[in-house]
Amino acid sequence: MDNKIFTKLSYGVYAVSTWDNGRPTGCIVNSVMQITSSPATIAISMNHNNYTHKCIEESGKFAVSVLTEKTDPAVIGTLGFFSGRDTDKFEKVAYELKSYMPVVSDSCGYLTCKVINKMETTTHTVFLAEVEEAAVSADAEPMTYAYYHKVIKGKSPKNAPTYIAEN
Amino acid sequence: MDNKIFTKLSYGVYAVSTWDNGRPTGCIVNSVMQITSSPATIAISMNHNNYTHKCIEESGKFAVSVLTEKTDPAVIGTLGFFSGRDTDKFEKVAYELKSYMPVVSDSCGYLTCKVINKMETTTHTVFLAEVEEAAVSADAEPMTYAYYHKVIKGKSPKNAPTYIAEN
Repeated sequence: MDNKIFTKLSYGVYAVSTWDNGRPTGCIVNSVMQITSSPATIAISMNHNNYTHKCIEESGKFAVSVLTEKTDPAVIGTLGFFSGRDTDKFEKVAYELKSYMPVVSDSCGYLTCKVINKMETTTHTVFLAEVEEAAVSADAEPMTYAYYHKVIKGKSPKNAPTYIAEN
Repeated sequence: MDNKIFTKLSYGVYAVSTWDNGRPTGCIVNSVMQITSSPATIAISMNHNNYTHKCIEESGKFAVSVLTEKTDPAVIGTLGFFSGRDTDKFEKVAYELKSYMPVVSDSCGYLTCKVINKMETTTHTVFLAEVEEAAVSADAEPMTYAYYHKVIKGKSPKNAPTYIAEN
């Protein structure tokens, strides 16, 4: 099997956030997709090792913030390359509350979601979630995963489904 | 809820194909994502009304062909805007067999997959599938859904999760 094919799949770049006992926490994911429009439902994939995964399991809720080409790379650095286990990520990343969920301010919009089902794999959970509220907040070009790699030259955190170990 | 946020999610453009009692059939989807890398697993979303949905339910297998910016728009026209119920789509779309699955020739690579789990929504099924074989076949830029809308000015077939009715 030629794993390079997986680099040909297209994604956006998103912050997924939730509550950790009253403290906001979150991480960066690329695997978000709309499943149906009525009732609006999305699916996301998240690594079991992400602290955010545990918090979503506990709260049953999360928000997706759509990052843009203008989003400060420090947002991705803070949310994507540290763990919420030992870092208060949202001390460094500006956020606002939407439907009682923490949403990244430096984004072009958000969806707040309630988990309604899930499927397990060896490393990742696919959460199916109904969208409770959603809004566009800025007229900016959404960041694609390809843009992130080409322009920001970001590397995949090792918990991403698309992670390829460097030799 | 502002549905415009759903246009800010980023996707690729793919042909999903399978067997219909010995005849290849398929359709166009944008919702494909990698879930884990070991064993390689992906998820796709498909409308219940797609004839391909029924055929995947019956065969338990499908292939994903990654379409590119150079893919002939007629491939999308034939696979995306007709139904396999009454059209032999692959009479007009060149394909080859990979691991006994029909794959669109005018693509930059493919994955052949075996369904291992699924989740239902009111309109769409999320199929979780293990990748059995995958290869890159051309060094071409994968088509994004944004490119499809901006450059090819394609419209969403009405079974797509991202379909927005025109008034």
